[in-house]
Amino acid sequence: MKESAVKKIAVLTSGGDSPGMNAALRAVVRTANYYNIECYGVREGYNGLINNDFLKMGARSVKNIINQGGTILKSARSAEFRTKEGRQKAYDNCIKLGIDGLVCIGGDGTFTGAKIFNEEFGIRVIGIPGTIDNDIFGTDNTIGYDTALNTAMDAIDKIRDTATSHNRVFFVEVMGRDAGFIALNSGLATGALDILIPEKKDSIDELFAKFRDAEKTGKASSIVVVAEGEKLANVYELAEKTKLTFPDYDIRVAILGHMQRGGSPSCADRVLASRLGYGAVTGLMEGQTNVMAGMRSNDLTYTPIEEAIKKHNEINEDLLLISKILAI
Amino acid sequence: MKESAVKKIAVLTSGGDSPGMNAALRAVVRTANYYNIECYGVREGYNGLINNDFLKMGARSVKNIINQGGTILKSARSAEFRTKEGRQKAYDNCIKLGIDGLVCIGGDGTFTGAKIFNEEFGIRVIGIPGTIDNDIFGTDNTIGYDTALNTAMDAIDKIRDTATSHNRVFFVEVMGRDAGFIALNSGLATGALDILIPEKKDSIDELFAKFRDAEKTGKASSIVVVAEGEKLANVYELAEKTKLTFPDYDIRVAILGHMQRGGSPSCADRVLASRLGYGAVTGLMEGQTNVMAGMRSNDLTYTPIEEAIKKHNEINEDLLLISKILAI
Amino acid sequence: MKESAVKKIAVLTSGGDSPGMNAALRAVVRTANYYNIECYGVREGYNGLINNDFLKMGARSVKNIINQGGTILKSARSAEFRTKEGRQKAYDNCIKLGIDGLVCIGGDGTFTGAKIFNEEFGIRVIGIPGTIDNDIFGTDNTIGYDTALNTAMDAIDKIRDTATSHNRVFFVEVMGRDAGFIALNSGLATGALDILIPEKKDSIDELFAKFRDAEKTGKASSIVVVAEGEKLANVYELAEKTKLTFPDYDIRVAILGHMQRGGSPSCADRVLASRLGYGAVTGLMEGQTNVMAGMRSNDLTYTPIEEAIKKHNEINEDLLLISKILAI
Amino acid sequence: MKESAVKKIAVLTSGGDSPGMNAALRAVVRTANYYNIECYGVREGYNGLINNDFLKMGARSVKNIINQGGTILKSARSAEFRTKEGRQKAYDNCIKLGIDGLVCIGGDGTFTGAKIFNEEFGIRVIGIPGTIDNDIFGTDNTIGYDTALNTAMDAIDKIRDTATSHNRVFFVEVMGRDAGFIALNSGLATGALDILIPEKKDSIDELFAKFRDAEKTGKASSIVVVAEGEKLANVYELAEKTKLTFPDYDIRVAILGHMQRGGSPSCADRVLASRLGYGAVTGLMEGQTNVMAGMRSNDLTYTPIEEAIKKHNEINEDLLLISKILAI
Repeated sequence: MKESAVKKIAVLTSGGDSPGMNAALRAVVRTANYYNIECYGVREGYNGLINNDFLKMGARSVKNIINQGGTILKSARSAEFRTKEGRQKAYDNCIKLGIDGLVCIGGDGTFTGAKIFNEEFGIRVIGIPGTIDNDIFGTDNTIGYDTALNTAMDAIDKIRDTATSHNRVFFVEVMGRDAGFIALNSGLATGALDILIPEKKDSIDELFAKFRDAEKTGKASSIVVVAEGEKLANVYELAEKTKLTFPDYDIRVAILGHMQRGGSPSCADRVLASRLGYGAVTGLMEGQTNVMAGMRSNDLTYTPIEEAIKKHNEINEDLLLISKILAI
Repeated sequence: MKESAVKKIAVLTSGGDSPGMNAALRAVVRTANYYNIECYGVREGYNGLINNDFLKMGARSVKNIINQGGTILKSARSAEFRTKEGRQKAYDNCIKLGIDGLVCIGGDGTFTGAKIFNEEFGIRVIGIPGTIDNDIFGTDNTIGYDTALNTAMDAIDKIRDTATSHNRVFFVEVMGRDAGFIALNSGLATGALDILIPEKKDSIDELFAKFRDAEKTGKASSIVVVAEGEKLANVYELAEKTKLTFPDYDIRVAILGHMQRGGSPSCADRVLASRLGYGAVTGLMEGQTNVMAGMRSNDLTYTPIEEAIKKHNEINEDLLLISKILAI
Repeated sequence: MKESAVKKIAVLTSGGDSPGMNAALRAVVRTANYYNIECYGVREGYNGLINNDFLKMGARSVKNIINQGGTILKSARSAEFRTKEGRQKAYDNCIKLGIDGLVCIGGDGTFTGAKIFNEEFGIRVIGIPGTIDNDIFGTDNTIGYDTALNTAMDAIDKIRDTATSHNRVFFVEVMGRDAGFIALNSGLATGALDILIPEKKDSIDELFAKFRDAEKTGKASSIVVVAEGEKLANVYELAEKTKLTFPDYDIRVAILGHMQRGGSPSCADRVLASRLGYGAVTGLMEGQTNVMAGMRSNDLTYTPIEEAIKKHNEINEDLLLISKILAI
Repeated sequence: MKESAVKKIAVLTSGGDSPGMNAALRAVVRTANYYNIECYGVREGYNGLINNDFLKMGARSVKNIINQGGTILKSARSAEFRTKEGRQKAYDNCIKLGIDGLVCIGGDGTFTGAKIFNEEFGIRVIGIPGTIDNDIFGTDNTIGYDTALNTAMDAIDKIRDTATSHNRVFFVEVMGRDAGFIALNSGLATGALDILIPEKKDSIDELFAKFRDAEKTGKASSIVVVAEGEKLANVYELAEKTKLTFPDYDIRVAILGHMQRGGSPSCADRVLASRLGYGAVTGLMEGQTNVMAGMRSNDLTYTPIEEAIKKHNEINEDLLLISKILAI
């Protein structure tokens, strides 16, 4: 093997946390250790770079975390890193410590920071997509997405029990400020009557038409899954409007909220995180920079960070049709 | 065995549904079947009595439901059953069918209906405590309570992951309009910093004192579990007030909501439901009436319905102290 | 849309059951219903074709099954269908009923039967890959594989708790007679010290070398995940041999067994099953035959059944290296 | 409050581990801390006393463990502690450190050791029942039992899926060498056709009679739950004998094994562990010794260790009858 392009790397988690970040961190640390690259953990995202909050990490530093939700490095959004002064401080600290490569685990915002940092100071950076929203281009799935889907689905399955027992209509809000992946997939998986997501133009009349169709087929209870970022209306407004038109309906609202970010990662997420953690370190070693490690159809790929941020995984139109057909 | 006091019984589920109602129903139907008592299911609670919505049930009618949340008989609150006319209709339907015993699975409201019905018309009734709230006297646990505790706990464990990763304060509302059992036990089980329940007088100053103590011990994230029926303030108000006093805190709110009512029942709930379903039918056969079947320290007991409604399981004061000591 | 190539289809599940078969069945039935194709369920796999055990299915026949493990049509291996006479009977029954398309949900054996049936009698067949083993070419994942991974992982996580508490070595057998996918992925996800699978040549010396390395790094407990079809030795033999060489080790064996086939399907499996059920019916309508519906990198694909049987998804060599690096 | 009878205590976990041991440990440490009692953790059970392996513990030493299976102190069976010399060493180490009270978390064997140690050397001891077997007198439930029930039940639910899909008979072995609590309750909760436990005299003819009855009622698949300690035969022998008499049956065996000891504790187990950990420390403070802290019908009780070991919770005869009636 030719010489590694990096000798001493740092790793951080930033932005909203997602299940599997710890598994990714473990993979980064142990891969570095295996290839004799020194490795430092950075606490609380980019703030840790600025505040010189580095932590030397060896193979045992990451034991027993592969199955833990959250991130032991903690995460934060950093206002200071958005300023040139902040980034200068961060760079100075890296230089002082001899850091020549940086692994950034997070989403859009995290990657934007990494890209600017690389372009300003030339330090090698590589991204690992860790977010439950799955809205990152360059990887089939982001780390945490699969776990969040199962969490949302389990919760909706439970709501279904009580909805059916009482002939109720439930509006369930799931996470996804800009992306409907969680809503679409968890809705399909739970037989939701309708699924409202920001990527498509929804109308209240179509929703009401579905309620009327459901009545005709004898469906006595219904669940409508709504992405956080839905533009038509939020779950409370939807419930109100529905009540006005269907005064006999017994309507409830549920907001699944932050529990979707936690929990022990699924097998798929642990495997994905392990592969991407490994891929990030070996990528840096091979000279990659300003790219994101991703997995497409079971193959490790590197996508320029710029592309990962700008492009988006498209919602599959088929899924919308299928969910409509199957929720009959 | 002497002759059974009943020959043909009906069973209904009423009020808010709870996990294990199906397991109780299964036990009622199969116990009746075993002792050659005819058994009818009544749909949608007391409404089914009024609307003559009976369903003959045999051993196979209840197969594959022991592990299902909700209630296949469906549940409802019945305004009409609160009127004398409604109850008269219900009684007439029972007489027409030859029903001489009624098993009512539900909570306070269900039992009140059963009691009045028995006192007015003399028909034998027996209650089975099915509610997640555990606020029924005469049984250590109500059916569904244990499952709801685990559901709430699992959700709070997940919230804990993200709270810790971001150094956040979470106010989590759990079910319990009149009773703090779910809040107290799920809060204790998740190491909540504070637990606010309707049974004790809470003050915002005490809560704030706990935040200050937590800061001193270096606790960076906290969860406060709040019962739905808490009198001091709801979770949104608590979050706002806290923000005013602790402007640096990153505060979030989570309302666990109706998912707490659903899900496959826990082993304890399935066993409890099976024993009470059996106990209700054998109780009716032995001539019991106007009582509730319950389980106290592993023994089947019958408590007058009046007592079950009027008295309440007291919150254990020790638990409050213990939760305070352990959440250090 | 041009005219459908099929008017009346039948659907069956065959071979070992897997979580998500019901979700696939639901998708087949409802998609057929949506496009006005008559649909029949066949009971107990190919036996049902031979025994004329057809069941007319409409949209409501498949309600409340998307979240259920197993298969409501039941599954079986059919010796009679392996004979020409058996297949003739099956074909005669199809013709009598007017079946012009057959959806076969299962694995290798199921597809072989479908292929021969198609080639002998010309009846259109399409396969849906339903098996936990993931050993089918033409789809990234088979239906049930993701759920089985999570089930195996959860069990191994639990075993890890007790292994760590007692400094024990556990040999854990997971399913996979010919394929190591479950072993490799669940082993990677649980930090197994070693993973033994039929696709690679294992030696007892390498295993023992890993035990010695683990001792050096201070690892006091270890888990070795072994695929059912491992050629070196089975878990009991491995435990014995290890005991001879490491007499101080406290060694235990666990065989996860059939629980890996059951359980409510994961979100990924429900979505996959829904898409493939839809794809199978629309495929038949468009004139596809003797192919299998699969999903590759989020796209619906049709692979000739012959290819699906003959080729195999290869174990990713990277994964073996990664699991070795990360289990340090 | 009068002066505490102890000033410096030690706590250990011994014997087979059970979910909730960590929660009990947390409660012991934090209660001691709250009342200004110094507290030491002892590693690997009684071995730690002998090997002088003490660990000073404060409130933060036990953070984030309430939800973890296993025991961070590790557990072991100690041959040396069964000798007078071993116990003398243990006592000398306690004296050197100034330990005047010992909390022993475990089962029968653990308590026997504690009792002898107390009787020989006078050091105050108190037991906390931590075992999944529930075979300890003086408490309604032991710590870990409820979690183990849910683990066994979930596994059997999954096995049920595949049993039903293939019309199979499964013999499922659950833990319980001397006690049938897990078998009886998990079997009742999963509708097992028969439940074989060491506490009752089983006969193969009765079992076969149940198979014949099941056939008559049209039951196509069956699960028989067998306790590890069943005297009639083990699961493999039962399967063989059944095959001889019912050659058409498709029979499988499953041994749930050590996964029953692990996993995150249920809410009931965390609450029980918290209360008993608190009760053990306050008991020692109040002068209790040679007793076990237990919970009966929601009340904290202290039972002489001798009684806890000698007496046994009886299997409830009703449960056997109920399981028979309900598995129709």
